[in-house]
Amino acid sequence: MNDVIFKNMCIIGVGLIGGSLARAAKLAGVVGNVIGTSRNQSHLEKALDLGVIDEFDLDFKNAVKNSDLIVIATPVGAIKSVLEEIKDSIPENAVITDVGSTKGSVLEAATEVFGELPSRFIPGHPIAGNEKSGVISSFIKLFKGRRVILTPQLHSDLKAVEKIKSLWIACGAEVILTSVEHHDTILAATSHLPHALAFSLVNTLAEMDDKNDIFKFAAGGFDDFTRIASSNPQMWSDICIANKDALIDVLDKFTDDLANLKLAIKSQDATELKKQFSRAKKVRDSVKKVFPVAY
Amino acid sequence: MNDVIFKNMCIIGVGLIGGSLARAAKLAGVVGNVIGTSRNQSHLEKALDLGVIDEFDLDFKNAVKNSDLIVIATPVGAIKSVLEEIKDSIPENAVITDVGSTKGSVLEAATEVFGELPSRFIPGHPIAGNEKSGVISSFIKLFKGRRVILTPQLHSDLKAVEKIKSLWIACGAEVILTSVEHHDTILAATSHLPHALAFSLVNTLAEMDDKNDIFKFAAGGFDDFTRIASSNPQMWSDICIANKDALIDVLDKFTDDLANLKLAIKSQDATELKKQFSRAKKVRDSVKKVFPVAY
Repeated sequence: MNDVIFKNMCIIGVGLIGGSLARAAKLAGVVGNVIGTSRNQSHLEKALDLGVIDEFDLDFKNAVKNSDLIVIATPVGAIKSVLEEIKDSIPENAVITDVGSTKGSVLEAATEVFGELPSRFIPGHPIAGNEKSGVISSFIKLFKGRRVILTPQLHSDLKAVEKIKSLWIACGAEVILTSVEHHDTILAATSHLPHALAFSLVNTLAEMDDKNDIFKFAAGGFDDFTRIASSNPQMWSDICIANKDALIDVLDKFTDDLANLKLAIKSQDATELKKQFSRAKKVRDSVKKVFPVAY
Repeated sequence: MNDVIFKNMCIIGVGLIGGSLARAAKLAGVVGNVIGTSRNQSHLEKALDLGVIDEFDLDFKNAVKNSDLIVIATPVGAIKSVLEEIKDSIPENAVITDVGSTKGSVLEAATEVFGELPSRFIPGHPIAGNEKSGVISSFIKLFKGRRVILTPQLHSDLKAVEKIKSLWIACGAEVILTSVEHHDTILAATSHLPHALAFSLVNTLAEMDDKNDIFKFAAGGFDDFTRIASSNPQMWSDICIANKDALIDVLDKFTDDLANLKLAIKSQDATELKKQFSRAKKVRDSVKKVFPVAY
C-alpha cells in the first residue's frame, strides 16, 4: 500500500477523467477523502452512487475549502471561471492541478485570475480517454501504462510537482515534464487534428446524397477511423478554441499535404502516390514497433 | 456440407483476399481443386506451404485453362493486363470474378480487352480486409458477417451471378447487388477517402520538427485513426487512380467542410464548432447503433 499523499482531494467536474482519477487514486491508497463538485447535481449523485466520490457539495467554494488537492477536471473552456470562483477559498498549502488537453490556455486563465500561475498549481494532462464521457464511463485502469504530461513553470513549488507526479504514478501512469508550447504543438498534431478530421469526415458523408447507403456499406477502416467523432462536442469545441494557434498551424500543413495528394490522384501519378503512401506506411509501421500495445 | 459449386478454382494473386477466399471456400466445401498463380513465385510457394492452394502454375494461361472459376485477386491496376494475358485461355463456360475495390475501372478494363464485359464475368468486391497484406495474413473468417457487393450488368449470365453469390454466402458473407457507379461513389466516401486522409495525416506529422515526440506522445484515438496508413501502397495507389473521379469529388467536399471548420476555429466560434461536432457525433453514434459489431 502507498502512503497517503493528499488527505482531502476535491475533484471539480467528475466525468470520465475526474472519475477515473478518483477511482484509481483511492484504490492506490494515495488519497483520503474525495469530495466532488460540479455544475450538475445529477452527475455528482451518480458519482456518489458509484462510490467514485465520498461526498459532494454543489458550492465550489465549500468543496475546495478543506482540500489539500484540487483537481480541475472540467472542459478546458470552463477552467478560467472555475478559478475565479474558487480563488478566495483555496487553502494556503493546497496543491492545484488540472487535466485539460491544452496547457497554454490554462496558463493564460491562471495568469488572468491570479496575476501569475500560483506556485502550487501544476498543470497536467493525462494522455488517456476515449470517445465516451461521464462518470458512468470512468474506470480504475484508464491511466495504466499511459503518459501524463506536467507543465510546471520555473517558479513552481518542487514539492507540489513531486506530489502530483507521485499521484499519477500511483495510478499506473508514466509522468513526463515538458514545456507548455511543446505540449500544445504535439497534442495539436496527434490528437486535436485527428479529432477535427474525424468530425469533418462524418459531416461530409452525412451531407451526401447516398448517405444512407454510405453508412450501411461502411468499410473496414471506417469504424476505427471515425470512432473519435463520437467524442463530446463541448469538450472538443473548447479544445479547438483553446489550442487555436497550434491547431490552425498543423491544419494548414495537413491541407497542403492533402492538396499534393489530390494533385497526384488527378494527374494519375502512380509513382508519386506510391511514394507518398510508402512513406506513410513506413512511419506508421515503425510507430507500431515502438508501441506494440494499444495506447 | 455444401455442394461443390466449382470443381476447379483458379486464384490469380494469392494475397490476403485471394488466400482468405481459398481458405473459406475449401472449408465450406464449395470448391474442389484450387490452383494459384501470381507474378511472384515465392508468394505461391508460401500459399502452397500453408495449404491455401493445392497447386500453382506461374503461367497464367496454364493456370486458368482447366478452371470453371477464375478469381482475379490482384491489385486493381493489374486487372487489365491479367485479362489480356488470359483472354485466349479462358474455358468456354468458366465464370470469372474479381475482388477489386473499384468497379468502374474493372468494367472499363474488361470492355477494352473483350469489347464488352463477358456475360460470365461477374465483378465483385468483398468489403473486408485490414491493413495487412500477403497470404501469410489470410484467414478463414475474413468474410464472416461482411458484405460482398456484386455489380453484374444487364446482359450478365444469371446462373453465373447465382454461383458467385452462393460462393460468397458459403464463406459467411452477405451479398448485395448494386450498380458500378453507386458502388464507386459509396466506396470513395467510406473507404478510399479515409485511407487518403490517414496516409496524408501520417505524412504531415512525419514532416514536423517535433516528429520524434509526436509519435512518442501519440494520444488515444491516434492509433485507431492511422492504422489504415499501414495499408499496401501499391494497392492504394491503384485504387486512387482507378476511382479517381469519385474520390476527387468526395475529397473536394471534404476540403470544403474542413475549410469551414478551420474558419470556425480561427474566429473562435464556439456555437458553430459545437453545432458541427454535435451533428457528427449524432450521425456517428447512430451508425454504431445500427452496426454494433466491428466491421
